[in-house]
Amino acid sequence: MASLKTRLEHCFTRDALRSYLAEFLSTFFFVFAAVGSSMSSKKLMGNAASEPTGLVGNAIATAFSLAVAVYISASVSGGHVNPAVTFGMAIGGHVSISVAIFYWISQILGSVMACLLMKVTTVGQHVPMHGIIPDEMTGFGASILEGVMTFALVYTVYAAADPRRGSMAATGPLAIGFIAGANVMASGPFTGGSMNPAYSFGAALIGGSFRNQAVYWIGPLVGAAMAALLYDNVVFPQGSDSVGSIGDGNGA
Amino acid sequence: MASLKTRLEHCFTRDALRSYLAEFLSTFFFVFAAVGSSMSSKKLMGNAASEPTGLVGNAIATAFSLAVAVYISASVSGGHVNPAVTFGMAIGGHVSISVAIFYWISQILGSVMACLLMKVTTVGQHVPMHGIIPDEMTGFGASILEGVMTFALVYTVYAAADPRRGSMAATGPLAIGFIAGANVMASGPFTGGSMNPAYSFGAALIGGSFRNQAVYWIGPLVGAAMAALLYDNVVFPQGSDSVGSIGDGNGA
Amino acid sequence: MASLKTRLEHCFTRDALRSYLAEFLSTFFFVFAAVGSSMSSKKLMGNAASEPTGLVGNAIATAFSLAVAVYISASVSGGHVNPAVTFGMAIGGHVSISVAIFYWISQILGSVMACLLMKVTTVGQHVPMHGIIPDEMTGFGASILEGVMTFALVYTVYAAADPRRGSMAATGPLAIGFIAGANVMASGPFTGGSMNPAYSFGAALIGGSFRNQAVYWIGPLVGAAMAALLYDNVVFPQGSDSVGSIGDGNGA
Amino acid sequence: MASLKTRLEHCFTRDALRSYLAEFLSTFFFVFAAVGSSMSSKKLMGNAASEPTGLVGNAIATAFSLAVAVYISASVSGGHVNPAVTFGMAIGGHVSISVAIFYWISQILGSVMACLLMKVTTVGQHVPMHGIIPDEMTGFGASILEGVMTFALVYTVYAAADPRRGSMAATGPLAIGFIAGANVMASGPFTGGSMNPAYSFGAALIGGSFRNQAVYWIGPLVGAAMAALLYDNVVFPQGSDSVGSIGDGNGA
Repeated sequence: MASLKTRLEHCFTRDALRSYLAEFLSTFFFVFAAVGSSMSSKKLMGNAASEPTGLVGNAIATAFSLAVAVYISASVSGGHVNPAVTFGMAIGGHVSISVAIFYWISQILGSVMACLLMKVTTVGQHVPMHGIIPDEMTGFGASILEGVMTFALVYTVYAAADPRRGSMAATGPLAIGFIAGANVMASGPFTGGSMNPAYSFGAALIGGSFRNQAVYWIGPLVGAAMAALLYDNVVFPQGSDSVGSIGDGNGA
Repeated sequence: MASLKTRLEHCFTRDALRSYLAEFLSTFFFVFAAVGSSMSSKKLMGNAASEPTGLVGNAIATAFSLAVAVYISASVSGGHVNPAVTFGMAIGGHVSISVAIFYWISQILGSVMACLLMKVTTVGQHVPMHGIIPDEMTGFGASILEGVMTFALVYTVYAAADPRRGSMAATGPLAIGFIAGANVMASGPFTGGSMNPAYSFGAALIGGSFRNQAVYWIGPLVGAAMAALLYDNVVFPQGSDSVGSIGDGNGA
Repeated sequence: MASLKTRLEHCFTRDALRSYLAEFLSTFFFVFAAVGSSMSSKKLMGNAASEPTGLVGNAIATAFSLAVAVYISASVSGGHVNPAVTFGMAIGGHVSISVAIFYWISQILGSVMACLLMKVTTVGQHVPMHGIIPDEMTGFGASILEGVMTFALVYTVYAAADPRRGSMAATGPLAIGFIAGANVMASGPFTGGSMNPAYSFGAALIGGSFRNQAVYWIGPLVGAAMAALLYDNVVFPQGSDSVGSIGDGNGA
Repeated sequence: MASLKTRLEHCFTRDALRSYLAEFLSTFFFVFAAVGSSMSSKKLMGNAASEPTGLVGNAIATAFSLAVAVYISASVSGGHVNPAVTFGMAIGGHVSISVAIFYWISQILGSVMACLLMKVTTVGQHVPMHGIIPDEMTGFGASILEGVMTFALVYTVYAAADPRRGSMAATGPLAIGFIAGANVMASGPFTGGSMNPAYSFGAALIGGSFRNQAVYWIGPLVGAAMAALLYDNVVFPQGSDSVGSIGDGNGA
C-alpha cells in the first residue's frame, strides 16, 4: 500500500496536476472546433454528409484547432490532446503508465464537456458521431484505416518532439494539426477521420450511441504503438546523429 | 487633477501613440477581411448563410487576416486587435487600465472604419452583423458559446506571448489566427463566431442594428478574464520552469 | 553620358541580374497559380464567378503561392514579386529607382509568361482578367479598395523585413501570402483582389482587354507608397527600440 | 564486380536503409491523403470532377500532407517524397545515382501501398488516376504544365534546403507543401496536378490504367532537372553570399 502511494506520488505533484489541466483544456478546445464544424455544416445544409464542402470545413477546423491545442499545451503537458498519442508516448517510455492514465481521464473529460457544451448551447442540434456505413465498410477495414492515419499522426508527434530537429521544432504543432486535417479530408465519408479515441468517446456519449466505438479505440491504439516503436527503434534510434537539412540526402 | 495628469502621462508617450496606431491598423485590416469575406459570399450566392462554402471562406479569411494583424502589430502594441484580448491583458496586469481604454478606442475606430469602407466602396451592399436566430438560441447560450471561444483565443494569446516558449514564439501569430478560424467554422450558423466586441460593434454601427449586441460583449469579456486568470495563476504560474518540448510528458 | 553609365552600373552586377531572374521566376510561379486556380474553377463550373467555392480556391491558391514566391526569392531579391511592393520599397529608399525599374520589367515579364503558358497549354481556355462590374462599382471605389488592400500587403512586407522582429522573421513569407489570400476572399466579386499591377497587366495582355486597367495600377501604387511612409516614419521609426513580445503591451 | 560492390556499399549503411524507410513512410502518408481526398469527394458527390469543392479539398489535403511528409523525413532522408525531387537532387550532385535508385524504389512502393490500402479498406471504391481529357489537351501541353509545376516545386525544395536561409529553414516543409497545393488548385481539371511520378504510378497501377502515364514522368523529370541546374548554377551559386532579409533589395 505504501508502495502504491510512492508509485503514484509523482502523479500528484503541482506540475503533474497542471499537465492534466492543460490536456483537459486543449482537448476541450480541439473537440469543440471539430464537433462544432460538423454541426455547423449540418445546420447550414440539412445533410452536409452528402456534400464535400462540409468535409473541407471540418478538415480545416481540425487542422487549425489541433495545431493550436498542441501549441498551447506543448510546454506544460507535452501537447498530447489524444489518448492514442499518450499511449504511443507511454509505449516509448516517455511518460509513465500512471501519468498516462490521468492524461486519458483529462482528455476524455475535455472531449465530453466540449460535446455537452455544443449540445446545450445550440439547443436541439444533434452531436454527430463517428461511424461507418454498415454495408460498405467492415469494422476491420475501418480499424485499419483509423490505425494507419493514427500511425501517421503519432509518427509526426514523435518527429515534432525530437530535439534533434533544430529550428524545425517551431513548426511542430502546425505539422501535427496539418496531418490530422489532411487525413480527415482523406477518410471523411469512410470512417469520419477521428484518430482520437477521446473525441469519438465524447461524441458517442453525448450523441447517444456507442455503435462502432471499438473501431475508434483499437485502430488508433495499435497504430500509435507501432509508430512509437518504429520511430524510436528503427528510423531515429537514440545515438543516431544524422540530423541534416532538407535535400542533403544524408543517407548517401 | 495633477494626479490624474501624472497617471495619464504614460498614455501619451510616443511609444504609446504608436501602439494605438498599430492597434487601429491591425483591427482595420482584420475586420476588413472578415466582413469583406462575408459580403463576398453573400454577393456571389444571394444567400450564403444557407451554404457552408461561405462559412469556409469566412473561416479562412478570419484565420489568415487575424494571424497577419497580430503579426504586424506584435512588436509595437503587443498585437491585441481585440478589446477582449486587451481586457484579458489588463486583468493579468500586463497593460494598465488607462492604456487599455485607448487600445479599445483604437480597435473600435479601426473596426468602424473598415465596415464603413466596405459599405461605401461596394455601394448598395449590406454589411453583415453578428446575430443569433431568435427561436433557436437564447442570448444566454450564445454568450456562453462566444465566451468559451474567446477563452480559447485569449488563452492562446497568453501562450504565444509567453517568453518561456522558446522557438515556438515564431508561430504564435499563426496559432492565434488559426484558433479564431477554427472557432468561426464551429460556430458560424449559431452566433457568427465573433470573439471580438470591436468587430461586432463596428458591424452593428454600420449595418444599422444593435440587436443581440450584449452577447458579443459580455461573453467575450468574461471568457477573456477567465483565460487570463487561469493561465497566469494556475497553468503557467510565474516561477514555474517546466517548459519542455512536445512529447516530453514533463508532468511526470 | 558617362554619369548615366555610372548610375546604371549597379543595375548590372551579377547579384543584380540574379535578383531580376529571381523576381521573374517568383512572379511567374505566383501568377501561374493565381490565374490557374481561376481557370480551374471556371472549367469545372462553367461560371465559377457565381459560386463562392471558386473564390475559396482562388484565395487559398493566392495565399499559398505568394507565400512560396516570397519565400524562395527573399534572400536574393528581397521577395517583392509585385511592382507595388517594389514601388513601396523604392519610396522608402530600400531599393534604387533604376533597380526598381528592372524589377518591374522582370515581374511583368514573369506574369505575362505565366498567363501565356496557361492559355497555350490548356487550349481554348480563357485567361480571366481583373475587372469591376460597371453599374455597381465606380473605378474610384475600386481603386480605393485595391489601394487599401495593397496598403495592408505592403505594410506586412515591411513588417516581415524588419530585422527587429527576431524569431518571427521565419514566418514572414507566410504572413505576406496569408494577407493576400484573406484580401482575395474579401474583395473577389468586387474588384477581383489583385493588389499586383504585374498580375493584372499580364492577365489583361493575354486575356485581350485593358478595360479598368488603371484601377489596378493607381490604387496599388498609392496604397504601397502610403504603407511605406507610414511604417518607416510613424509606426516603426529607425532608432525606436520597442520590439517586445506579443502581449507585453509595451506601449504602456 | 568488386568495384560494383564498393560502389554500392554506401547504399546499404544503416543510415541509408533508414533513409529508404523514411522515404517509404513519407510517400505513403502523402499519397494516402492525396488519393484519399479525391476518393472522399467522389464518394460524397458521385462526380466531384465537375465541382470545384472537391478540388479545394484535394489541394488542401495535398498541401498539408506533403508539408508533413517532408517535415518528418527531412532530417533523415532529406525529405524528397517524390522521384522528381530525387532526380533533381541527383542532377545537382546532392545524392548519388545509386542511392537515388533506392529512393525511387522506396517512393514507388510507398505510393503503391497507399493506393492499395485505400482500395482494400474502402471496398468497391475506385482509385482515381491522373489523366488528361483527350480532345482538349495534348500530351505535350500536359507534360509542359506538369513540368513547369514540378520546376516550381523542386526550386522550392532547393530553396528550403539552402543553409544560407537562416531562420527561414523552419518553414521550409510548409513552403514545399504550399506550392504543391497551389499548383493542384491551378491544374486540377487540366492534368490533375501530380508533379510526382511515384504518385501517378501508384494510382495507375492500382487504378488499372497506364494511359497518359508518360506525361507524369517526362514533364516532372525534365522540370526537376532544370530547376536543379538553375538554382545551383545561376540564382544561388556556391560562394555567393547575398543572403539578405526580405525587402533589403540587396540586388542594388
